[in-house]
Amino acid sequence: MTQFRLTPLAQSLPATVPFVGPESQERARSRLFDARLGANENVFGPSPVATRAMAETAQWMYGDPESFELREALAGHYGITPDMIMVGEGIDGLLGYLVRLMVGPGDAVVTSDGAYPTFNYHVAGYGGVLHKVPYKKDFEDPEALFAKAADVDAKLVYLANPDNPMGTAHPGKDIVAAMEKLPEGTLLVLDEAYIECAPQGTPLPLPMDDPRVIRLRTFSKVYGLAGARVGYALGHPDLIAAFNKVRNHFGMNRAAQAGALAALEDQTWLRSVQARIAAARNRIWDIARSTGLKPLPSAANFVAVDCNRDAEFAKAVLHEMVARGVFIRMPMAAPQNRCIRISCGTPANLDILAEVLPVALRAAENC
Amino acid sequence: MTQFRLTPLAQSLPATVPFVGPESQERARSRLFDARLGANENVFGPSPVATRAMAETAQWMYGDPESFELREALAGHYGITPDMIMVGEGIDGLLGYLVRLMVGPGDAVVTSDGAYPTFNYHVAGYGGVLHKVPYKKDFEDPEALFAKAADVDAKLVYLANPDNPMGTAHPGKDIVAAMEKLPEGTLLVLDEAYIECAPQGTPLPLPMDDPRVIRLRTFSKVYGLAGARVGYALGHPDLIAAFNKVRNHFGMNRAAQAGALAALEDQTWLRSVQARIAAARNRIWDIARSTGLKPLPSAANFVAVDCNRDAEFAKAVLHEMVARGVFIRMPMAAPQNRCIRISCGTPANLDILAEVLPVALRAAENC
Repeated sequence: MTQFRLTPLAQSLPATVPFVGPESQERARSRLFDARLGANENVFGPSPVATRAMAETAQWMYGDPESFELREALAGHYGITPDMIMVGEGIDGLLGYLVRLMVGPGDAVVTSDGAYPTFNYHVAGYGGVLHKVPYKKDFEDPEALFAKAADVDAKLVYLANPDNPMGTAHPGKDIVAAMEKLPEGTLLVLDEAYIECAPQGTPLPLPMDDPRVIRLRTFSKVYGLAGARVGYALGHPDLIAAFNKVRNHFGMNRAAQAGALAALEDQTWLRSVQARIAAARNRIWDIARSTGLKPLPSAANFVAVDCNRDAEFAKAVLHEMVARGVFIRMPMAAPQNRCIRISCGTPANLDILAEVLPVALRAAENC
Repeated sequence: MTQFRLTPLAQSLPATVPFVGPESQERARSRLFDARLGANENVFGPSPVATRAMAETAQWMYGDPESFELREALAGHYGITPDMIMVGEGIDGLLGYLVRLMVGPGDAVVTSDGAYPTFNYHVAGYGGVLHKVPYKKDFEDPEALFAKAADVDAKLVYLANPDNPMGTAHPGKDIVAAMEKLPEGTLLVLDEAYIECAPQGTPLPLPMDDPRVIRLRTFSKVYGLAGARVGYALGHPDLIAAFNKVRNHFGMNRAAQAGALAALEDQTWLRSVQARIAAARNRIWDIARSTGLKPLPSAANFVAVDCNRDAEFAKAVLHEMVARGVFIRMPMAAPQNRCIRISCGTPANLDILAEVLPVALRAAENC
């Protein structure tokens, strides 16, 4: 690598992948997975109207760099103005832009130990210094996050609500209450990727242009369009405008813009997916309990399941599941890594889960 | 903006858009364009096989972060190994990653005055210092670029071959000859976005893993998939691997991956597009000449047309064309900005061009 004159920061970074994709695992095992329940994708898929809109889009044209129609529709949906909305290449892409805008070498950032690795990847990628606070009984701990932010003069504090990978959520009003302790110089980065399947009262009850917070939402989860890469940020117009300093203006896929717009307009489909996610969560809870495991409560489209022992054991369970054709993932940090994480599946997927989980569990016990 | 703690670099950047999209112009004029000939899109569109592959992709799944199948297919196409190939979100996205990897505040970068603004945007966005050399008779000037790179100890030197916005091209062997002067510490960033419609002999006759150069190619132009956002870099495996330090691993649209793969496999369609581009160039030349203007030679899917006067006049012609429903663009720097730039259109598009250009020209003359 020495022959290429990378920046000192780039030289210091590992050539890493935050998550190994299921396709890589399938290639390694020379077999497709029977159930794809590891990436919190939405197996119920997008609205058929969205699928049609994507298929009918002429892809010889670049997408609209302003994502104007989608932003107009989102503004109508939320009763806000389009200047509070930035559309980007998924929450991952928007987090990258946000970190780039605000975090330079040595700048402090706060997150929970075991929260979203891709956020951490971006912070490290711009030379920021991550400070982590522990989860509190498998919930992210807003008070501790904001207190730590004050301690270290953090520029950003990351909080996912609902949380990933644990699936737990706080009522939005509790986060507002905790924000009393949010220091003035810290921006709250609120990742609401799973908000559409969370209980009423989970969204933050604050105006979308509150300058203390930027919210990130997506069409990848409950709207079923992970492959399309459409996320959006909601925030103060000055902050939203700053994305224009660094973003890839022509980075949006044109069909994806049309698909997201159509998906947003089909709230009937969204409600049907919400119901199917709720049913799938119930079934995962039942399956886990019937094998003696402890499923956690979930406000998201997945369930974290406590395997009752240590990380090594959870890892063995995961390994045995994957070996039997069920793609799942698990939390990366202690003590949450005593759990495995199972995304909501179709009834057929969950039939497979019901069959494989007890077998995998016995195999792990005999390791 | 002062309430948000942007980095000093981010604060210094304008909230800009390198190009105003045609949709923005359409909204401003409250009418759609009759001919969309400004963004060097491919009006002939992608292979129908690619369109079908995109429509049949289940977009509820994330794309493969390794773009494995597409890289395998590209490797087969070029007779190289997949570790020489990085797939990314269009050339724009890949240029952003490359600049981020190599350019920090104060680092020198060389380009031609009037070459691709999005490259300049990325360099400014990471604090690099741009040094520009003039075009030489409407051609980029490799010798001058490389000499300047030596003068300023540039980390990167950008060269588009064929060039945009002028459409001119050098034989690849002439660039190789000029590379004698490329300093050892400078990486040649060779943008070959239009290579598939350039004459034989235009591609650089050097191994793809030559460490002195990184090549950028795309499915946006001759493959007709601008809306899909799929580009790729070809280079030395160590340099290609470095993209994994900073890229958005899950940034690729899944349908776009499938569409690009199918497009690559339909070389029959590609050849038919190449023929239609050649015919459209001929027709644009004829139309321009018949109005007394001087079309430049072109190795790309557009033609730069010398309006025989100064930039003000070319701007007026452009304005009158746009006002009459024909979206075109023009070079931004002198002396190339005496020209307008017209993308290849369908026969119907060019019928409109033939009708509108002389009228617009007269209107500009009467300004």
